[in-house]
Amino acid sequence: MAVTRIGNRKIDEIRKTEIITNFLRHPLGSVLIKVGNTRVICSASVEERVPHWMRKQNVKGGWLTAEYGMLPSSTNERFRREATGGKQGGRTVEIQRLIGRALRAAVDLKKLDGITISLDCDVIDADGGTRCASITGACVALQLAVEKLLKQGKLKSSPIIQSLAAVSVGIKDGTPILDLNYEEDSTAEVDMNIIMTESGEFVEIQGTAEGNTFSESQLHDMLKLGRKGTEELFKIQKSILNQN
Amino acid sequence: MAVTRIGNRKIDEIRKTEIITNFLRHPLGSVLIKVGNTRVICSASVEERVPHWMRKQNVKGGWLTAEYGMLPSSTNERFRREATGGKQGGRTVEIQRLIGRALRAAVDLKKLDGITISLDCDVIDADGGTRCASITGACVALQLAVEKLLKQGKLKSSPIIQSLAAVSVGIKDGTPILDLNYEEDSTAEVDMNIIMTESGEFVEIQGTAEGNTFSESQLHDMLKLGRKGTEELFKIQKSILNQN
Amino acid sequence: MAVTRIGNRKIDEIRKTEIITNFLRHPLGSVLIKVGNTRVICSASVEERVPHWMRKQNVKGGWLTAEYGMLPSSTNERFRREATGGKQGGRTVEIQRLIGRALRAAVDLKKLDGITISLDCDVIDADGGTRCASITGACVALQLAVEKLLKQGKLKSSPIIQSLAAVSVGIKDGTPILDLNYEEDSTAEVDMNIIMTESGEFVEIQGTAEGNTFSESQLHDMLKLGRKGTEELFKIQKSILNQN
Amino acid sequence: MAVTRIGNRKIDEIRKTEIITNFLRHPLGSVLIKVGNTRVICSASVEERVPHWMRKQNVKGGWLTAEYGMLPSSTNERFRREATGGKQGGRTVEIQRLIGRALRAAVDLKKLDGITISLDCDVIDADGGTRCASITGACVALQLAVEKLLKQGKLKSSPIIQSLAAVSVGIKDGTPILDLNYEEDSTAEVDMNIIMTESGEFVEIQGTAEGNTFSESQLHDMLKLGRKGTEELFKIQKSILNQN
Amino acid sequence: MAVTRIGNRKIDEIRKTEIITNFLRHPLGSVLIKVGNTRVICSASVEERVPHWMRKQNVKGGWLTAEYGMLPSSTNERFRREATGGKQGGRTVEIQRLIGRALRAAVDLKKLDGITISLDCDVIDADGGTRCASITGACVALQLAVEKLLKQGKLKSSPIIQSLAAVSVGIKDGTPILDLNYEEDSTAEVDMNIIMTESGEFVEIQGTAEGNTFSESQLHDMLKLGRKGTEELFKIQKSILNQN
Amino acid sequence: MAVTRIGNRKIDEIRKTEIITNFLRHPLGSVLIKVGNTRVICSASVEERVPHWMRKQNVKGGWLTAEYGMLPSSTNERFRREATGGKQGGRTVEIQRLIGRALRAAVDLKKLDGITISLDCDVIDADGGTRCASITGACVALQLAVEKLLKQGKLKSSPIIQSLAAVSVGIKDGTPILDLNYEEDSTAEVDMNIIMTESGEFVEIQGTAEGNTFSESQLHDMLKLGRKGTEELFKIQKSILNQN
Repeated sequence: MAVTRIGNRKIDEIRKTEIITNFLRHPLGSVLIKVGNTRVICSASVEERVPHWMRKQNVKGGWLTAEYGMLPSSTNERFRREATGGKQGGRTVEIQRLIGRALRAAVDLKKLDGITISLDCDVIDADGGTRCASITGACVALQLAVEKLLKQGKLKSSPIIQSLAAVSVGIKDGTPILDLNYEEDSTAEVDMNIIMTESGEFVEIQGTAEGNTFSESQLHDMLKLGRKGTEELFKIQKSILNQN
Repeated sequence: MAVTRIGNRKIDEIRKTEIITNFLRHPLGSVLIKVGNTRVICSASVEERVPHWMRKQNVKGGWLTAEYGMLPSSTNERFRREATGGKQGGRTVEIQRLIGRALRAAVDLKKLDGITISLDCDVIDADGGTRCASITGACVALQLAVEKLLKQGKLKSSPIIQSLAAVSVGIKDGTPILDLNYEEDSTAEVDMNIIMTESGEFVEIQGTAEGNTFSESQLHDMLKLGRKGTEELFKIQKSILNQN
Repeated sequence: MAVTRIGNRKIDEIRKTEIITNFLRHPLGSVLIKVGNTRVICSASVEERVPHWMRKQNVKGGWLTAEYGMLPSSTNERFRREATGGKQGGRTVEIQRLIGRALRAAVDLKKLDGITISLDCDVIDADGGTRCASITGACVALQLAVEKLLKQGKLKSSPIIQSLAAVSVGIKDGTPILDLNYEEDSTAEVDMNIIMTESGEFVEIQGTAEGNTFSESQLHDMLKLGRKGTEELFKIQKSILNQN
Repeated sequence: MAVTRIGNRKIDEIRKTEIITNFLRHPLGSVLIKVGNTRVICSASVEERVPHWMRKQNVKGGWLTAEYGMLPSSTNERFRREATGGKQGGRTVEIQRLIGRALRAAVDLKKLDGITISLDCDVIDADGGTRCASITGACVALQLAVEKLLKQGKLKSSPIIQSLAAVSVGIKDGTPILDLNYEEDSTAEVDMNIIMTESGEFVEIQGTAEGNTFSESQLHDMLKLGRKGTEELFKIQKSILNQN
Repeated sequence: MAVTRIGNRKIDEIRKTEIITNFLRHPLGSVLIKVGNTRVICSASVEERVPHWMRKQNVKGGWLTAEYGMLPSSTNERFRREATGGKQGGRTVEIQRLIGRALRAAVDLKKLDGITISLDCDVIDADGGTRCASITGACVALQLAVEKLLKQGKLKSSPIIQSLAAVSVGIKDGTPILDLNYEEDSTAEVDMNIIMTESGEFVEIQGTAEGNTFSESQLHDMLKLGRKGTEELFKIQKSILNQN
Repeated sequence: MAVTRIGNRKIDEIRKTEIITNFLRHPLGSVLIKVGNTRVICSASVEERVPHWMRKQNVKGGWLTAEYGMLPSSTNERFRREATGGKQGGRTVEIQRLIGRALRAAVDLKKLDGITISLDCDVIDADGGTRCASITGACVALQLAVEKLLKQGKLKSSPIIQSLAAVSVGIKDGTPILDLNYEEDSTAEVDMNIIMTESGEFVEIQGTAEGNTFSESQLHDMLKLGRKGTEELFKIQKSILNQN
């Protein structure tokens, strides 16, 4: 069955993606990333101390962590403010753990000596793919912050190993498609998030078939789409960082 | 002692204020309000049911409530995410109660029959005056939402009684000044938030002299500045709503 | 329209106010304050250390903070115990922040060197004006505690700058009235809390017109009543402290 | 070894006990009970509905429950406010469960048809024996509330089966003593709380030897003292209720 | 009225009790205790540091504490997981305080120098008497852990003073019975938990007559049954520890 | 580099796996699954009602959900009890969401009409692979519960679509290995959890390279191992269910 996408987007085409750097005034690095109608503010804040557990266990180097949130007005039906409810929901916790874990693959923590970088990803408009947009955007915010730390002399050499990008892929009506928006995501049979490095290695893959299953050949089709999508995202990241 | 302000701003001059309407995709009404370097996303979400206590007590009409938050990266030193900490801080609670209470003076709740409007004010950049910017912006978001409810036929007549605007005033080095930025606010002797109606009445005034006091004549000077400031804000609100 | 008050109280007359000193056995200073039917236990407990943030930021001097609570049986309909519910309600947080902020204007924190004073205001009977009664009573408890600290040699000179008193004023049926009880407060158009110093300066004013507005001339009428009310409260405070 | 008690109190002598009825304005029944320096406000509030679990399981009759709290300023060293900490401590939970369980033995729940009685025991001054004072006082508050419910016609017949009283006993320096104050309690080898009915039956006994043990003959000595103590408390309860 | 028990158990007969030692891989001491159909995993974990309050108050020796939990699937109707609900229920708190308090009577805390022992009692199958089974089992786990600490040279002499065992007794249809299962417990008039030492002294007794009362002679009958029950449990403990 | 495994296990060999059915007394289905030294109690409890959100949105069918926990004594260093801490940790939330999501692929929710199945996975001994063992075990518990529901006539036809099994694979010292124990897992470069159906389709794959990356060919090697591992687990499941 042929899949028709909004605006005649091809099945292997990512949405229009834009990254505005230095979007916020206070954090050392920040961007606004737009992926189609999804918009996320990603920032990298720097603190010159490491978490309690590192000091206690005498672990050398620095740390990188992430938090994720959605504005109550970012979703179609108003999303209950988590600060009011008294805790972060399960989905939020799962996503912010993924972002932090992924981004730690982008840096050599040993070179972050004595420094903690907090990545905050706050969704202001949600239309699918917010966790992937968060990772792609946070990676740019991280690089902007590291550049400033190098200029300020707070880091001697760059801890950045490589850039990361993330994209979602899925199977909808039996067809593998790239970069699902909310409407596609909520009706797809399979949803997979693929996080890759510039050199084409995997950092994390998470494939879920809520109430369904997928075959090895479908997995391969999705991985191929993911590779294509992240390659395009790396071009956008590069072009933005060169302008900066 | 003469007070020198950033950019040679006069003591009775408000900061450059800009309101971008329909900033978000999902809520019925939304704006991005910029007051100098302070930026707040204000939205009005609509739900066609009233709170439990109204149903239980059989109160007629509708309801309007507000929530306030700051992005962790909106402040100079990263602000601990309240959802992670498990509760809203005291300052947050105090501010969102003020916003809700104030905006309820702008509407005739009886005409909001069966409808609850949630105003979300989320600060993305903080440089002083966030609660006043939230009120001034939320009032526009509210009016945009009401216009749509009227068009959709969900409201028969407008519940809006009048527009509101809010501005902070203070005493710094003995001089009354209008619309304090963060640096001014943190060193002022007195800080007062003034919320007024277009017709020049007060909705709420909150004057605080943390560790200090103020005289009746200083109070009058501040009220006069507040009146001038809100008059200018009403012009900006009107011009934006006419363009819409 | 003429306003008739319970017991033929005049519109500019405060309720019968009584302050019983040393009401509790353990804290250094304590009172039971009765304002009409409202009764609040106010205490000042002393700890010879300062909060973590002062030590961390190396701030000199001492600190003063306040907490407020209502017994579940202090209100007409039983008030849900906040300890059971797992958090303090928004109104409670707002009130205790006000009490602490106000009372810090009564002391020179630098002279409280190394000492934290905790003011606890626990309402045992509520009939309107509990936050004002708390401030007026806590100020006496504070002075009793300071006297003992001076006698014990733990303070070299008194940190008390001046006494404070607080009273509520409002507009009911268009008439400004002084010191509203619960029934008056719940039907008034405007409610204002005025906190003043013995020398007639303002420490904080909070005027709220839930769903209404008020004019500048009404504000002046209310301020005048507030001044009269606090002057009478200062006489009662003085007379009690002289007896002590 | 002979035990010397404050004020030459005998080893089988209870402290001076006083019960002031109708201490609070709002709840249907209330007392202030003083046992030596311990003071507790006990109240009985009435709600004309039963808990969710009773409605769900279709259990007939009514319910009686209890909550216990200590004012932060009731103890020698200030007691952290449980509402601020976000939960009731283990000791508080244990005590309020005991109070509720005990008082349910005083009433025939079937006759409380459709009614829930909440007993609030709030300690304003703590000097040992607060849980026993709470039970003895709450039982009077309960009887006052029931009398009013009978007068109001909300109950057809009294659900009160019998009055209860509670007293602590202990072993100090090998000697069994009655009604321990805080100083005695904190140095005793064994501490036992005895709750009895007017007719001399036990409702609950809790004997604890924190880090010690006690023999059967010591147990008998303590039970004997407990019986003597509660008999005297019943006389005080009776005399107060007759005056009422 | 004669009481008939499942499997023709006599009124003074304990259920079949079995203790499997070293049930878990990680903690220093552990058992699975089975008392009829009740099964509890008890473990003793060792940490070479003492609680904050001991360090702060400079208390010598070590500490022993306990926690209790029930698997959601251990009860007839699924028991809501307390970690999900956000807090331990009142019954859980009450029980774990009892276990810790009791077990502290089994050890000389001064000899536990610098060591904290955590006893975890996790019920996997509940059929009445879980708190007593927890205490009887935890006492064995404690002794196993202490033996290893002695072998490891971390303790110079054994802190164990004596073994403890606990059993429930009750009055059902007017007859005193020993070691109640769930069905008996939920219909008994009186329920008493008796914790004893090998030498026949009491550590704690808790007798409760939810909605009923009991006489002194019934108390004596129950104490006698409790003594018989714990004597049998001590034999089982001894035999197990000798095999170990 | 050659990888040497404990007990000379081959790189493509799963640990000794054993499933004991009907391990608990109360839930409709339950097992104890042992995978090497890892032991998890899995149970399936049945409630004849569906969650609030299904009733509200009028969704037909039933629901299946999962919760995961670890006994404090299940890990090498004692694991802080989550019920005491007041919330489930991020890792726990992530795992229980995975278990629930996966198992929903094993059933046709429409056929579970009006029924909610809660799967509880409680780890009593942790030595790596607890989430995979939970899924493999929970799937058996689920099937046992469904068999009973069919026998009881509460389900007309089986909602089971297929059995699931899960196994972890990883890259250690550059070599792909199957079914990692804790020591292997904590030093592996890549860790992947693979959840498959009996028919060889994927339900979920989660591959993580904490601080590392992996290539497409490594991914293929891991998928191959995962397929081999789950095939063996399906044989064990089948054999157990046939015996039952």
